[in-house]
Amino acid sequence: MIDCGEGTQQQMLRYGIKYHKIDHIFISHLHGDHFFGLIGLISSMHLNGRTKPLFLFCPAELKTILDLQFLHSGTVIKFPIEYYFTNTQASETILETNDFTVDTFVLNHRIPCTGFFFKQKLKLRKILKDKVSEIGIPNAYFPLLKRGIDYKDADGNIYKANQLTTDPDVPRSYAYCSDTLADGSYLSEIQGVDTLYHESTFMHDMVDRAKETFHTTAFEAAQIAKKLDADKLLIGHFSARYRDLTPLLLEAREVFPETYLANEGETFMI
Amino acid sequence: MIDCGEGTQQQMLRYGIKYHKIDHIFISHLHGDHFFGLIGLISSMHLNGRTKPLFLFCPAELKTILDLQFLHSGTVIKFPIEYYFTNTQASETILETNDFTVDTFVLNHRIPCTGFFFKQKLKLRKILKDKVSEIGIPNAYFPLLKRGIDYKDADGNIYKANQLTTDPDVPRSYAYCSDTLADGSYLSEIQGVDTLYHESTFMHDMVDRAKETFHTTAFEAAQIAKKLDADKLLIGHFSARYRDLTPLLLEAREVFPETYLANEGETFMI
Repeated sequence: MIDCGEGTQQQMLRYGIKYHKIDHIFISHLHGDHFFGLIGLISSMHLNGRTKPLFLFCPAELKTILDLQFLHSGTVIKFPIEYYFTNTQASETILETNDFTVDTFVLNHRIPCTGFFFKQKLKLRKILKDKVSEIGIPNAYFPLLKRGIDYKDADGNIYKANQLTTDPDVPRSYAYCSDTLADGSYLSEIQGVDTLYHESTFMHDMVDRAKETFHTTAFEAAQIAKKLDADKLLIGHFSARYRDLTPLLLEAREVFPETYLANEGETFMI
Repeated sequence: MIDCGEGTQQQMLRYGIKYHKIDHIFISHLHGDHFFGLIGLISSMHLNGRTKPLFLFCPAELKTILDLQFLHSGTVIKFPIEYYFTNTQASETILETNDFTVDTFVLNHRIPCTGFFFKQKLKLRKILKDKVSEIGIPNAYFPLLKRGIDYKDADGNIYKANQLTTDPDVPRSYAYCSDTLADGSYLSEIQGVDTLYHESTFMHDMVDRAKETFHTTAFEAAQIAKKLDADKLLIGHFSARYRDLTPLLLEAREVFPETYLANEGETFMI
């Protein structure tokens, strides 16, 4: 989960997302619309009987805010919260699993703020089952083939791994650009991104207000997606002044056609 | 507003309750379901341009919790928040206006907790317009008549105030019994209450669990309303285990027929 505004737990309930599906939460910065829902979500996980750890990547101050509330409510959370405090001065890798890595990158907002860049790792090659069974290669060699290592049989015949396997899926990546001035300082950090989420608080006629408040316009977000040659741009974090979001979408699409509104409850494939 | 759980601002939006209608907020205790929505509500009032003061009656620790979040979000709230820290050891009058008073009373929960007792003041008598104009009593005397003072004309004729006015409306009262063990210790503090809100977390088959967690059953809440000879009992704060709330209502009504479920969005006249 990336950021957690007030009412997140109600929205999860509405969209059928179970608490136990969430193991990692990433908080970009400490403006309320990005973290006021976290204390309630953690409390509900606790009341739900969670025992497995929750990994929380956030500015260090968030821990003091949560701990103070646990203290005064007499709550001892029954599962471990494993904190990783983000460095809001320099980008770094904050998580690496077998399947993916997560890097932060520094954004330029009114208070310290990071974005998050999620990158799948290159997967193993895929076995062509018909071919390997035709040759009679023992199962024990499959992990080697998947890593591209050729198979040699007892008679010394060599079978090329790349003829017995196909290329792995291309790894995908997703960058989450939270609240920021569109100064482009972070573009080099998210080169090669497939799906880009970028805040678009205002339309471009309000670019002065956007600069003043360290936010981005829909036009600017689209320019960034274009520069990055992303596959897809998701825009969100719209000012409450916009009842109808279509003009924001159209403004962005003029520059970058593959733009979508990050509407609540919608699912996008990366 | 009495207590402010997560999502309160969304519910206000849903039910068309404007922020500026709220001048006083009363927080009974620091369990999350009673205050997690406050920081967001105050932030939204701030973003909405509020300038008039907000009066906040709460345990002292709530101020440190709010201040820490304002600090780390770099927020300087543009309107005054006037705190009145509740005494969780003894009942006291915490607010008196021309129209009503508010007293706290001590509840018995796992952490310090108070209830709130709202009492209308006796209003002025009501002028019988036909009668006073028939006699020709000058307007300047109306405030005296309303206070029950007779009118004497230039010829020394006396007109009895109680014949020129009718009795004022009977003052109404409302008691809010937040989370508590149903130990009845607070009954003497809310004698004469008209409308009683009382938590009813469980049904009475779970009375042991209710005692363990310092909560009340629907049956116990109804007994309390009966002892107090209240007009009306509103029950709420139901455990999430109850999908269908009708059994709770029926259990209470068996003891106290004028019981109602305090459903979200519903309005009750006191």
